Amino acid sequence: MIKGIEFSGIASGIKPAGLDLGLVVFKEEMNVLTIYTRNRVKAAHILYDRRVDKGPVRALVANSGCANACTGKEGVGDLAEIARSLAPLIGAGAGDILFASTGVIGRRLPVDTIISALPGASRTRKESGLEDFARAIMTTDTHPKIVRESFRGKKDYSIVGVAKGSGMINPLFATMLAFVFTDFPVSPDVIKRAFTQSVRDSFERITVDGECSTNDTVMLFTKRGEEDRGALEAFTDGLRSVLKELSMMVVRDGEGATRVAHIMVEGVKKKEWAEKIARRISISPLTKTAFFGCDPNWGRIIAAAGDAGVPVNLSKVEITLQGEMIVKGGVEIPFDEAKMKKLMNRKEISVIVNLNDGKASFDIYTTDLTYDYIKINASYRS
Amino acid sequence: MIKGIEFSGIASGIKPAGLDLGLVVFKEEMNVLTIYTRNRVKAAHILYDRRVDKGPVRALVANSGCANACTGKEGVGDLAEIARSLAPLIGAGAGDILFASTGVIGRRLPVDTIISALPGASRTRKESGLEDFARAIMTTDTHPKIVRESFRGKKDYSIVGVAKGSGMINPLFATMLAFVFTDFPVSPDVIKRAFTQSVRDSFERITVDGECSTNDTVMLFTKRGEEDRGALEAFTDGLRSVLKELSMMVVRDGEGATRVAHIMVEGVKKKEWAEKIARRISISPLTKTAFFGCDPNWGRIIAAAGDAGVPVNLSKVEITLQGEMIVKGGVEIPFDEAKMKKLMNRKEISVIVNLNDGKASFDIYTTDLTYDYIKINASYRS
Repeated sequence: MIKGIEFSGIASGIKPAGLDLGLVVFKEEMNVLTIYTRNRVKAAHILYDRRVDKGPVRALVANSGCANACTGKEGVGDLAEIARSLAPLIGAGAGDILFASTGVIGRRLPVDTIISALPGASRTRKESGLEDFARAIMTTDTHPKIVRESFRGKKDYSIVGVAKGSGMINPLFATMLAFVFTDFPVSPDVIKRAFTQSVRDSFERITVDGECSTNDTVMLFTKRGEEDRGALEAFTDGLRSVLKELSMMVVRDGEGATRVAHIMVEGVKKKEWAEKIARRISISPLTKTAFFGCDPNWGRIIAAAGDAGVPVNLSKVEITLQGEMIVKGGVEIPFDEAKMKKLMNRKEISVIVNLNDGKASFDIYTTDLTYDYIKINASYRS
Repeated sequence: MIKGIEFSGIASGIKPAGLDLGLVVFKEEMNVLTIYTRNRVKAAHILYDRRVDKGPVRALVANSGCANACTGKEGVGDLAEIARSLAPLIGAGAGDILFASTGVIGRRLPVDTIISALPGASRTRKESGLEDFARAIMTTDTHPKIVRESFRGKKDYSIVGVAKGSGMINPLFATMLAFVFTDFPVSPDVIKRAFTQSVRDSFERITVDGECSTNDTVMLFTKRGEEDRGALEAFTDGLRSVLKELSMMVVRDGEGATRVAHIMVEGVKKKEWAEKIARRISISPLTKTAFFGCDPNWGRIIAAAGDAGVPVNLSKVEITLQGEMIVKGGVEIPFDEAKMKKLMNRKEISVIVNLNDGKASFDIYTTDLTYDYIKINASYRS
């Protein structure tokens, strides 16, 4: 719990059933930093928030069940209308309220339904309400995702992160929604760089299905007031750890996923090349189905690596699966198939591809590709 | 049937059961043109053939069950050994024999097994043996893929194409193996450009799973001798049509596929941008699972388009599904959900994305993503 930050999550009627509307109210104005999707098609909340998020904010409204994307000017206007209705209920200006949405693309928000629900959302908010909020932003997630950290400066501080995300998860970047709150007083200018880097090292290092959402949003809310510079490093460490753990929760809860694979590409001439190879392997459906089948199918890994559009000298390549080196000099080191299959039958899979051609490296987390991914996504809208 | 071109397909023992070794013998030397995978990791047959395919050829050996990729210098040496054994059986030089392989990556060819089988393969060859050959190169294909065309010049000519491919199919390019034979006399120099363009318009316009194989190979074998220039256009038309039809057979037989979707992107400023958007949509797992679920989920199509890394002005976008325009000005035109679901429940799906922002266009064929793709690929090696 953070003093002065109140949460609620209610069933407003956006979805046929279940929590779907989350509200966060800050007793005092907070600073905010935001990072949005790189998709060229951006949801209404991103277009709207960009007008607001230059200054301090007093509230955040986040909903599931409707992405409010591809809804034209009307979709942005809907948010302005909701903000005007919420403002008097929480004693804030309409221009101090941010929004975030996740759900089906192309449908307008049911504005009247939401406005009718706002008094209830406002009335039920409390400092201990984070779990309700976390549940209200879930779509295909199987559980709420919350991470807490604390650290000491002149006083005790907290960092609390909450995220949702399960499908349409792709690096650059990789969540639908993640919000981090702290009572640590720090200005956006001071922390911006560390925040951006931490997002790069967390949400931009996971993928579920290679799909980049129109709605991806990460927000960091920090306290205003006199800074506590002595604790800045402790804060950035905590922030990094919260974002990393949230992103790992997202990839572990990837749609239909039964395993998470850590793809490490090493010994590459340029970091940019290592990244391309790691990302290419991480979205390869043949590699991901092999993980599902506990199949030590290194041929698919090497074929994906070769298709990354960067140089690969096959005769130097080494591949290590679950700690066992099974490829050296680009050819197989004979291994016990049954034993390797058993080793692959774990929740965590480790893949190291070493090109032995330089010093750069890159790593990323991905999931296996399973029947349940198909099941979830062949029927999600219906 | 083409006079002087003999085919056989036998069960040599590379696979535990079934036809796995195909042989083509040309009574007279033929010219050959080849196009190989853009994957940086290339199978042994590509490295080997490149030495041979500068001059005329007398035979082609193609096998399934073993890709002979990532097998080092030894994998290339194995082919030289097989060529030396085959040469006297067919009265050719060892240097006039080409190879092509498809199957599991990383395993060496069982050279002794193959050499023992060569006399049988040679003995059973006949002009009517194409179907056996076509079956011998199948992996996860559900049926052999053969296309025939004929045309008239100074005399009657034939074009016969054969292909295999079902998974690891991706544009740029997109089959495991395809071979085209003709008794039309034409030199490689004259036909090279039309051949390359025809492959671009066929095999490079399909995708099943976005995976680019280490073994992709297209070969065109043409007769030598006095040219028949008057019939050149009829030949290139026939060639184009054979390659297009073969590529459509491959995508329709995509692993686990129940539908083929034709993705047409129009009204784009640059052709290169149209291509990027079309290709991005064609590999989107969320779009492909929606096709499987007969879901007119245009939001996923537009999200994929926005993620292609090229400009998209959402407010001008139109989307037409199965002939029904359901998005205009970037927002939905309300439609009858049940009726659209019914329209989507067909073997062929048509998607038109019009950016209304220029005159360039690009189209590509892709499959749906189904339970059976997972089933086939989570267990293929075992």
